[in-house]
Parts: sequence; C-alpha cells; structure tokens
Amino acid sequence: MKGKFITIEGVEGVGKSTNIAVLEELLRDRNIEFVRTREPGGTEFAEKLRCLLLDNAGSNPAALSELLLIFAARADHLEKLITPALELGKWVICDRFTDATFAYQGEGRGLPREAISALQSLVQGKLRPDLTIILDLHPEIGLERVRSRGKLDRIEQETIDFHVRVRNSYIETARRDSGRCILIDASTDADTVQQTLRDAVADKLPELR
Amino acid sequence: MKGKFITIEGVEGVGKSTNIAVLEELLRDRNIEFVRTREPGGTEFAEKLRCLLLDNAGSNPAALSELLLIFAARADHLEKLITPALELGKWVICDRFTDATFAYQGEGRGLPREAISALQSLVQGKLRPDLTIILDLHPEIGLERVRSRGKLDRIEQETIDFHVRVRNSYIETARRDSGRCILIDASTDADTVQQTLRDAVADKLPELR
Repeated sequence: MKGKFITIEGVEGVGKSTNIAVLEELLRDRNIEFVRTREPGGTEFAEKLRCLLLDNAGSNPAALSELLLIFAARADHLEKLITPALELGKWVICDRFTDATFAYQGEGRGLPREAISALQSLVQGKLRPDLTIILDLHPEIGLERVRSRGKLDRIEQETIDFHVRVRNSYIETARRDSGRCILIDASTDADTVQQTLRDAVADKLPELR
Repeated sequence: MKGKFITIEGVEGVGKSTNIAVLEELLRDRNIEFVRTREPGGTEFAEKLRCLLLDNAGSNPAALSELLLIFAARADHLEKLITPALELGKWVICDRFTDATFAYQGEGRGLPREAISALQSLVQGKLRPDLTIILDLHPEIGLERVRSRGKLDRIEQETIDFHVRVRNSYIETARRDSGRCILIDASTDADTVQQTLRDAVADKLPELR
C-alpha cells in the first residue's frame, strides 16, 4: 500500500465531521491526493446496508446479524474503494472503521471480541489504519448535540449505558494501541480541539508536518 | 432441540417447492407441528437482505460481502425463527440452508471452504439439519423451467458454468455427508421423484414411516 489510511472515531455527536474537514485541509495544503469516505457505507452496495442498519422503523436485527452485516459492508468497501485507492497511492480518510465495531457491537452489544477479531482477519487480512484519531467526549454531551440536529437513528437511540460502554471501548483502544491511535479530548472549545488534532497528527505522520 | 430440522437443496428450477409440499403433507398426516421457511430470508430483517442479494438492478456486492450478508440473514433467521421453533418441539422445513452457501458462494464464487466453515461455526454453533434432501438435475434443464416462469434474479442470471459448479458441490455434499443427506434424481417424472422422496425420508426418519 502506498497511500496512508486514516480513520476517525468517537461517540455520536463528538465532532467527527468538523475535524475531518481540518484533516482534509491539511492534506490539500500538502497536495496529497485523498478520498474521504465513511462506514458503514462508502460504496453503492454498502450504503444500502447502512440504511438497513440505521433504520429505526423496521425490526431490530439479531446482534450477531448486525455484526455480520457491518463486515459485509466493510468487505465491499475495502474491495471497491479503500484498497484500490491506497494502491494508487491516494490517502483514505474514513469516518469510522473496525474500532467502531469493537466499540458498538463488542462492548455496546456484548458480542465477544474473538468473533470480531476473526471477522477482521477474514475481511481485512493484515490491513489496519496507519493512524486512528479518537475524539473523546461524554456521550451525554454528544447525544445532546445530535438531538438538536433532528431525529435519532437506530444506534443513536440506544441507552446512555450503551453509549458509555462505547466510549470506554474507544479509550481502551487508544490505550492498548497507542502507536496507531491518538486520543483527543473533544470537550474543550473547537479551536483547541483542532489545534490539538493538527499537532498530534503532525507528530505521527511526517508528511503532515 | 426437540423438533427436527429438515432442509431442501438443489439448483434453480429443480422442483423444491413441489417436493416441499409433499413433505408438508407427510408431516400433516402424522400431526407433526411444523414451520415452513426459506433462506436467505425467513424473518422480516432477513427478507430485506434477500431482496438486496437477489436484486439485479443495483451493483453486485463483492463475493465476500455476499457471503457475509447470507450469514447475517442466517443469524437473524436462526435466533428469531428456527431455534425457537425447534426448542418448542416444532419441526422446521427450510428451503435452502448452509449447503447452499458452500455450493453457491463456495464452489460457485470460489470462496474458500474454511471461511464458510468458520462462519458456520460462529453463526450456527453445533446446529446442523437432521435431514437434508438434495434434488439433483442438470442446471440447463432447471434454468429452462425458471426462464419459462419469468425474469431471472441476480443469482439465476449467473453463467451455466457457475450453476454446474453449484450442482457438483451438492453432489459432493451428499456423498461426503451421506448420514444426513438424501440425493434424489429430479430428472424423472414428478410422481417417481415424489415416491422416491417419501421412501427415502421414511428410511431416515422413523417418525415419517
């Protein structure tokens, strides 16, 4: 792989979009060609699966079914978009990836880590992000922001306990995989968060200094 | 599990529906309570995945994505319909199950058996059908019947080579797992096929004698 693969993670309403925009600006300033994408989704087929996953009108899938569906979307996304882009030397910025699966379906839904790891190997082989930015915020604050924007989707509607488990999983991932991950406190003002992001990213990736 | 789990398999147009009706009659005559269902599908959520899988208007999913989607549908189907029915002592007759995955996604699409076996263990644990009826026919004949009924779905539209590999996989399954499977020649007249089915089923399951 010649391009770099950057993922952004965090609880609902943590400010991923705003900070992705900062990252995009950094890459543009350095003339680095990149693709911005998201999970679940990113391809025509995977976006259809996203609709099913977030739809709060239909019946809830079994937890294991939800997990497999997310990896089904990921397999299509990797084969058609992420891997080809990286092979062409493009960078990929992805809004959520497998750390979200460990957080939401693992800690959130209580599915075993080993099952998720096995699916990760099956679908990704050895591919892992080069850099993962984890924005940290108490989910109460994040969900309040989401609510002010409009109707909640099926996952956002989960209990606060669910979202606290998701947050804790992200913090644990950042601790366990500190070489790859940056944990950023997203509870301060936007300017401070963005400056922290710029500094941390420059520290990890020489291309962004 | 107190109920028995019976699956019916075979290439497109082999006559599964007609022979499922024979099986249903056998069970009704013996006052055995049963549920008839199908894969992919069988629950509200899994039927939505079926629509996506068979839709020939959208883009084709990556092969691995298709495989994971089928197991996502199966996980929901097992948790909400098949397992509860069997636990209540009901029999379950299912039009296609995991042998179809080994045939279509394994031999058909060329995905490795080990990946399918791993997903089978993850989703089914130790659950396997008590009896599998495999109807055998050259796919040319079956597909001709399907064509005469109307428009072909995304899987039916595959090449004849694909369908020949599917057929061969079914024959191999019947050979390998002869304790569980019955292979029935479906190329003869309907009456002969149905009588063969009745005899073979009675031979395997004492309740149906």
